Amino acid sequence: MSVNLTGKEAAQTLNEKTKNLCRSLRLKGIVPTLCIVRVGDNPGDLSYERGAVRRCEQLEIDCVKRLFPGDVSQDEMMACIKSLNADPSIHGVLLLRPLPRHLDQAAIENALDPAKDVDGMTNGSMAGVFTGKDIGFAPCTAQACMEILDYYGVNCTGKRAVVVGRSAVIGKPVSMMLLKRNATVTICHTRTADLPSVTREADILVTAAGRAAVIGPEHVRPGQTVIDVGINLNEDGKLCGDTDYDSVKEIVEAITPVPGGVGAMTTAVLGAHVAEAAGRTIQSPAGEGRDGER
Amino acid sequence: MSVNLTGKEAAQTLNEKTKNLCRSLRLKGIVPTLCIVRVGDNPGDLSYERGAVRRCEQLEIDCVKRLFPGDVSQDEMMACIKSLNADPSIHGVLLLRPLPRHLDQAAIENALDPAKDVDGMTNGSMAGVFTGKDIGFAPCTAQACMEILDYYGVNCTGKRAVVVGRSAVIGKPVSMMLLKRNATVTICHTRTADLPSVTREADILVTAAGRAAVIGPEHVRPGQTVIDVGINLNEDGKLCGDTDYDSVKEIVEAITPVPGGVGAMTTAVLGAHVAEAAGRTIQSPAGEGRDGER
Repeated sequence: MSVNLTGKEAAQTLNEKTKNLCRSLRLKGIVPTLCIVRVGDNPGDLSYERGAVRRCEQLEIDCVKRLFPGDVSQDEMMACIKSLNADPSIHGVLLLRPLPRHLDQAAIENALDPAKDVDGMTNGSMAGVFTGKDIGFAPCTAQACMEILDYYGVNCTGKRAVVVGRSAVIGKPVSMMLLKRNATVTICHTRTADLPSVTREADILVTAAGRAAVIGPEHVRPGQTVIDVGINLNEDGKLCGDTDYDSVKEIVEAITPVPGGVGAMTTAVLGAHVAEAAGRTIQSPAGEGRDGER
Repeated sequence: MSVNLTGKEAAQTLNEKTKNLCRSLRLKGIVPTLCIVRVGDNPGDLSYERGAVRRCEQLEIDCVKRLFPGDVSQDEMMACIKSLNADPSIHGVLLLRPLPRHLDQAAIENALDPAKDVDGMTNGSMAGVFTGKDIGFAPCTAQACMEILDYYGVNCTGKRAVVVGRSAVIGKPVSMMLLKRNATVTICHTRTADLPSVTREADILVTAAGRAAVIGPEHVRPGQTVIDVGINLNEDGKLCGDTDYDSVKEIVEAITPVPGGVGAMTTAVLGAHVAEAAGRTIQSPAGEGRDGER
């Protein structure tokens, strides 16, 4: 029977830290503020937005919204992002995605100043994660994995880490973050030959395949720490991760549950990023000093 | 006794392709042009510059230079890059680095339009390599490794690739490029535990550690393809790679020599990038259509 790495506990600790930072910023006259940008009213977007708004309230982060009809034009969206870049009262921008197909999503994403890119979607943030430089922010879910490892005191140095999944949103950034912490990192994907033998090499196994029960008992061994990033629906319509949790947890040393694991940490990281973005404006006044880094 | 993967042969093939592309562009009125930007007269810079100029002559690429004294100001350098961005007759820019320490190198590098970043130094190019999107260009040496694998018909899909070294210039980009070709990629570094056991897992081993003889016979096994990116001086002052070539070549299936391997391919890739950058201007007129991608 393994240790249950719940995201809730780890999130509470991070939230306390963020709340303290927000309070000290407010004392200095800075009100940490997130702007949520939503196009249309997709139920998934609305649900994520509600979670983000609740989290901001809890963390004493102000939250404003820019809402657009589903048929908004590219020009209007670009103008919106540009005005948010120029607005010193906005520290972070959360653009709910995917955008409707008539819009050029990449162009809109990359119009955002990486300094306000608290969800890590711009090329600047990607380059920052890739090079280990302080540009923009890491994608929230990828960083949530690292926060859970940190909270539970898992030292990555010299460990074998195996990441299943090579997306630009999770697999690749979490690989770079594990590498930065001195893990020896292996990246697997759908074309990997003999996946079970590769995943059994891991001391730390991060599953971001995006399919239910991709990782079963044959993929793991005793002593492993498993971070399950998957959020899938199983045959019964129940939320589940990428691992076959019940069988895997009997073998490994520690595992994150789904729900209640990485997912529970994501909006906490979003809030931490907004506070950090607001804090950075003290060192470098709005907009200045970052232009060269893009 | 293994196959010798010489860069010279692979480079000839790529050069032929580039020369044909340049000729067809000239027929359309486009003269592929590289601008070399050099500060001071460091012998290493001068040597690399001579190689690049010779290669351009061979490939029918025009080559212009912007030379600055060692005490050039940041403002002058930024103005130079901006004027090159705006000049439709310049398709690629090679900035010789490192720059003198009084300059903010990162700011100067990132002022360059990724569309002209034929040496893959901007954050845009890094993001492109990281996400697999068509932004800027990969660093020449990292791509040279892939060109050699291609030339010798090494299929990466499903293979285990191990990269020794995690620099932003070689280790990380070559890892992303191997991943894009469906290899299962492991990234090692100075903090990797039991390096020999990890490198022996490789079907394709890329060494970019930057130290002579880091990889000896104990790190390899029969059947492997070894790409040695190292350019080091050994105790006798002789040019050598990261592998102990004489002992390793007796064990593995194929290996690149140093000199005459990856290094021989690098300026060929630079030339190919200039031709490609010039070719892209036909699809999207100078500067247009790329702004959103930064």
